[in-house]
Formats: sequence, C-alpha cells, structure tokens
Amino acid sequence: MNIYKNPKTETWFELVKRPLFKNNEISETIKEIFTEVQKNGDQALINYAEKFDSAKINQLQTTIEEIDIAENLISEDLKKAIQVAKENITKFHASQIVEIEKIETTKGVICWRESRAIEKVGIYIPGGTAPLFSTVLMLAIPAQLAGCNEVVLCTPPDKNGNINPAILYTAKLCGVSKIFKVGGAQAVAAMTFGTETIPNVYKIFGPGNQFVVAAKDFAQNFGVAIDMPAGPSEVLIIADQNANPEFCAADLLSQAEHGSDSQVIFISTDFNILNKTIQEVEKQVNELPRNIFANKSLENSHFIFLESMDEALKFSNLYAPEHLILAIENFENYIEKIQNAGSVFLGNYSCESAGDYASGTNHTLPTNGFAKNYSGVSLDSFVKKITFQNLSKEGLQNLGTTIELMAEAEGLFAHKNAVSIRLK
Amino acid sequence: MNIYKNPKTETWFELVKRPLFKNNEISETIKEIFTEVQKNGDQALINYAEKFDSAKINQLQTTIEEIDIAENLISEDLKKAIQVAKENITKFHASQIVEIEKIETTKGVICWRESRAIEKVGIYIPGGTAPLFSTVLMLAIPAQLAGCNEVVLCTPPDKNGNINPAILYTAKLCGVSKIFKVGGAQAVAAMTFGTETIPNVYKIFGPGNQFVVAAKDFAQNFGVAIDMPAGPSEVLIIADQNANPEFCAADLLSQAEHGSDSQVIFISTDFNILNKTIQEVEKQVNELPRNIFANKSLENSHFIFLESMDEALKFSNLYAPEHLILAIENFENYIEKIQNAGSVFLGNYSCESAGDYASGTNHTLPTNGFAKNYSGVSLDSFVKKITFQNLSKEGLQNLGTTIELMAEAEGLFAHKNAVSIRLK
Repeated sequence: MNIYKNPKTETWFELVKRPLFKNNEISETIKEIFTEVQKNGDQALINYAEKFDSAKINQLQTTIEEIDIAENLISEDLKKAIQVAKENITKFHASQIVEIEKIETTKGVICWRESRAIEKVGIYIPGGTAPLFSTVLMLAIPAQLAGCNEVVLCTPPDKNGNINPAILYTAKLCGVSKIFKVGGAQAVAAMTFGTETIPNVYKIFGPGNQFVVAAKDFAQNFGVAIDMPAGPSEVLIIADQNANPEFCAADLLSQAEHGSDSQVIFISTDFNILNKTIQEVEKQVNELPRNIFANKSLENSHFIFLESMDEALKFSNLYAPEHLILAIENFENYIEKIQNAGSVFLGNYSCESAGDYASGTNHTLPTNGFAKNYSGVSLDSFVKKITFQNLSKEGLQNLGTTIELMAEAEGLFAHKNAVSIRLK
Repeated sequence: MNIYKNPKTETWFELVKRPLFKNNEISETIKEIFTEVQKNGDQALINYAEKFDSAKINQLQTTIEEIDIAENLISEDLKKAIQVAKENITKFHASQIVEIEKIETTKGVICWRESRAIEKVGIYIPGGTAPLFSTVLMLAIPAQLAGCNEVVLCTPPDKNGNINPAILYTAKLCGVSKIFKVGGAQAVAAMTFGTETIPNVYKIFGPGNQFVVAAKDFAQNFGVAIDMPAGPSEVLIIADQNANPEFCAADLLSQAEHGSDSQVIFISTDFNILNKTIQEVEKQVNELPRNIFANKSLENSHFIFLESMDEALKFSNLYAPEHLILAIENFENYIEKIQNAGSVFLGNYSCESAGDYASGTNHTLPTNGFAKNYSGVSLDSFVKKITFQNLSKEGLQNLGTTIELMAEAEGLFAHKNAVSIRLK
C-alpha cells in the first residue's frame, strides 16, 4: 500500500504506470501452439487439454445432454438472478441499435450507414479460479442482438472434462449452442484456423490469462479481429468528504480480489476519508476468502490525497482507468470532465459489482491505459457499419466537376474519367 | 485478365483469395526504424528523410509561411472543389454524432454511454505517385468533429523538402496545424514514441505502402491503436443487363490505376455485358497516363459470369470487397443481402470516385477481406464510448440480491460484499 500526499504533477507519470507483463518466452509458446493447432486440429486440442488442464477429453463439443444436466445443477435462485441480469444487459445493449438515417449531402446524393453482424464470432471464457458465467452474458447477448450467425464458445474443462454448469446454463440461455472444451492459447488458435469440429471465426472476444491475451494479439496476424488489447483489471475511486469509507474499501477489495496483478487506486480530496478508507481496507481484507490475491494486489495499490476534484479528475484522465467510481456529491458537475475511462460509476450506491453483473452495462472494458484509445465492448463490437451511396444522374451532375478537379489534382485520371464518361 | 463462366462454388474460395504480401524482411526493417527513432528522435527522422526521400530537411515541422505559400499555389477551382467535398464529408460525419440516451434498466438503475474524443490522433498521408489530399479530408474532418485535442499530420517531403501544396491547403482548411515532413515507417514510429518536435499520439490513421502498413501493425505493440489493418485497394462490380459497360470499365480502371497490386473483380449475370465491359476496359486503359499500373493490376483481375443476382451477392459476401458497386436495376431489393463490404455504390451513376472524393462517405475502408470484421473509418473511429451508471439506494435494493447471488456463484466474495455492505 503506497500513500501519497499531494504528489507533484511531475511525479504523476510514474504513478499512472502499469507494470509491464509482456515477455518473449510467452510469444514463442504461442507460436508453437498455433502451429500445432493449425497442423493437427482436434488432436492437438485433445493433447493440450491433457497437458494443460489435466483433462482427458473424448469429444470437444459439449453435448445437449451435458447442457441439460448443467441446468439441473444450478439453484433456481441463481437461474433467476442470471435471467434478471440478462434482461438488463439486453435492454441496455438493444438501446445501442442505431436507426438508419439517410443524408442528402448534395441534391441527388444520398449517403447512409447500415449495420451488419459479424457473421462468425468466438467467445473465450476462462475457467480457473472464478468461473466467469457473467462474461458469457456480456458477450453472447450483444452477439445475439447483433444477429451473428455463428457464435462459438470455448472454455477450459476441469480435470473431469466438465465445464462449469453456470457457464453452460448461461450459454444456452443466450442462444449459444456451440460450446467447446478448449482453453488457453489453443482455444484462440482453434477459433483462428478452425479445426475438424471447431469453426473458425472472424472476431474473438473475452478475457483470459497472459497466454490467452498474447494468443489473441497473435491471432490478428491471421486476419482475425479481437475485442481489444488487454491487461490486468483495475479501479480508480475518487472520494470526497461525502464518501463512505466502508463502501469505498469494499469496492477497492472487489477489484483487488480479481488477481494479484489487479490495480487499485484511491484518490480523496478529504484526508479523513483517505485514512478511514485505508483502515477499512485493512479490516475487510481479512474476512475475504480470496485475501491472498487481494493482499498481493494491495501491495501495489496507491492511496493518494489531492487538493481538488479538478486535480483528481486530471490524474484519473492520465491513468485512464478501466473502472472509475465517483464517490462524490454533485457528480453531475464532473461528468463532462471525464475524458478517459472504461466505465464510470456515479454516487455512493453505484458499486462496481453492479456493472460487473447486472445493471446492464458491459463489463468487458479497456484496461492498462487503453481507455485512452479504445471503448469497452458494446453492440458496436459485433457489427460492421457499411456505408451506402446512391447518386442520381442529377446528383452526379451536381458533384461532377468537384470530383473531376480533385481526381486530376491527385493525378488519378481514371478516377476523373469515371465521372466524365457518365456526364458526356 | 481471368475470365470465368459459372465457376463452381467449390472454386470460389480460391477466387476470393488475395495475394499475400507480408514478409519478414520488412518486419526486421520496421523494428530497426522504431529502435532508431525511439533512441535518436528528430535526428533519426532527418537522417531517414535524406536516405529514403533524398530530402535535406532542416526543420521537421512545416512553418506557417510554407502553408500560406501553398495556398497561393493552388487554383481557385481546386480550392472550391475541396471546400465542396469538405462540406459533404462534414455533413455525413456530423450525422454520426449520437445523442445520449439514458436507459433505466431496473427502477433506480440508469445506464448510458457518452462519446469522448481520443485526445491525440495521428494522420499519415502518403506522398509518392499520388498526393492524397483527399485523405486529409477523410481523416481530419472526423477528427475535428470528434473534438480531438491534438491532430498530428505526417507526410513525406519531396526532394526539395517540400510538401504538396494541396495537402497543406487541405490540412489548414480542416484545422490541422501540426504538419511534419516525415514519411514511411519512421513517421509511424515518431507518432508512436514522440520525438523532440513530434508529439506522440494514441491512435494512428491513414494509408501507406507496405512499410507504413507494417509499421502501423507494429505500433500496436506500444499501446497505440490504429484505424484498421490494411492491404491493397479493391473493387467488386456486380452488373446486370441494365449496366453500362462504358461506365463499368471506367470504374474498374479507376481502381486498377491505384497500383499494380490493386484488385479488380467484375461479375455479371449478363454475358453480353461481361464481354462488352472487357472490350471497353481494353479500349479505355490505353488512354490512361497511369496505364502501367492499370495493366499490371488487370492481369490479376477476374471477370466472372454467374447465373443469378443471388449467386453474385453470395460471391461478393465471400470476397468482402472494400468497394462494391451494384450496377443493377432495382438495387433496393438486394441491399439487405449485402453482408460484407466496406462501402457500397448503388446504380449506374454512383461511381466509386464520388465516394473517394466528395459524396460525403469516408474512403478509408477495410481491404483484404477485412470488411468481414471491420468497419471503415467514421466519426466512431475518433471517439471512445464510455458507459456511465447511477444506482439510487432503491436501485441497488432492486438489483442487490441478483448481484450477490451471481458474485457468490463466481466465487468473488468481495464483489458480493460491495453490495451487502451497502444494503446492511
């Protein structure tokens, strides 16, 4: 836990730095895995399942029976919760559907955009310490709303060759039927090239460990798009004198428990709130089952006192947090000053876990400072927008000279001629 | 020129393939250039200008005087044309501004998205055989509409150390004041790292040769976003019995003149139109100043007869062309069947050059099959969309159990606690 009182602006650049976590060893492994999967397809995946997941798999695709059994393994309460979350996420993402607006830029020249689903998309869901069925909601719902033809889901099996039932249940609920027991970089390779049973896709979504992240980067060399580059998860909280230290501490810890590399930053303009929040963090962390992760993550955390809300927001924009919580009064006044962030939580009752699970916003967000140049996942991530134009003869007459002059000035005479020949 | 009559569907996969143009030699050169620019900044750029552009540069940044002189070197007619194009492009891109819509997903839970400009963007404009001032319009206009704070433009100087006056004039017209005499991969490196005079940026836009394309890909390793991956330009025309062979040939040639690696595909459901278009191409190509490029490009072109419009569109969707021209009657009936394309030109008077210059749509489009998973440049390319949420106490009460149940099922107890502690 690092505590800073009014750090000078010159030092901020150091404070906002994330630890680097790329390394060349990983990239060699990734290359090997891709080559192997491209060459040996399903068999390579079965071998890797045994090697990396200690799982003997006969059939890579989950059967309908397995999915039906999963449904019975989940409590009705959890099913209900997942359904409520699904409803909210659907509402919010459906609101992102844009109506087609045709623009007549010049008389007789009509231009517009239409959305088309990316036909084939892949969703990666990590297994490991937390079975992220919530991520299935966050990716499969917009894929379905967009109208993607083929949605492929890959997730690593446990030692018995099974997939977490909540993941299977959620996938089914969201209309995903092609679920494969493949994890890690090999899953990304499979969705990149396709194998005998796993279809290749045009875009791969979803979080994962360093291998998955590196594999997604690597997949781009083969023409596959990805949701966004990734790094460890992070939260930045700005708290004024009206914040509740108990709540703030709980939010910081809900980020810290993700993993030892999670980033946690707390900024307050009130010294008392800063100290009380630190005390609360130290108190609450001991009660957590995942406190090994949380404690490790807290070692790298920053608790910063800054004089004003303007300074706090300036720092936050420089850091570009994945999650930004404004635990302040009159947050309305500061919204327009937020320049770089993935998702913003306003006021004392907007905890990050609301957005992680059920409020409706997407939890697949830019980390590692990428909030400066990337948006989080939305319906937009699952579509392409195609531009259309229709020029009438009159339209081309109105624009013809303009096009001819510009084409000629660029030395592109065939471009000019395409107009001249029509207006002859 | 390859002519196919009713090729079997099994052969389509071969027909839609683009030539591969990546190679390892380039990537070694790119790495060297990046290292050199990161280490030696401006001096490296000055050295490269001498080496690659045979230009002695004293000052990398274009002066106000140079920009003013440029203005006097351009005809009033061309200025007028550029202004008309600017107006249309502005109209169309301004129509892409999305109003904020707040959604109450559950009573007391309000979610919405707001756009924020990417603060610092870089625009690369190639020099070489065609001075693409039109690309300045296509990139600087949406950057300005989005509200990007810093717009940096790099373009290679000629042998005398000058930049094409039309590029300077257009940049000034679109509010770009930071114009640097740097080309090639070194320009991309400069915008990635920043140098003494060139600011670093968060996202790099613009076309270029193989070195520029590879440099943009490489820049992503340093956290910089790019507009999209790139390949040679391409057009696919679908023509029925109502098409005009003269017009079609002119459109094919306006694509073919871009470079010897340009891709040109012509599909007709009418044999007569197919033959006449081929004759017209052969006739018109000889009259072009850039016919060396066009002839080379035509060698790899495909002229295909297919039985039906449905087949033609199926082929087109598989190819995923950057530009798609529907030179057909009743094109309205086929729009919804277009799945993969960058920009679509409808009817006999919608020539590609209209969209290349002045109709209002953007000409920075996905090539190389990337229309399957990428959109062309739009206002969206210059902003991030940040999600916001505000939960009232009542809102959290309504959603609390849902979040707690899901967090617990994922084994994330601190996530659960962030809710419980608030509802206690």
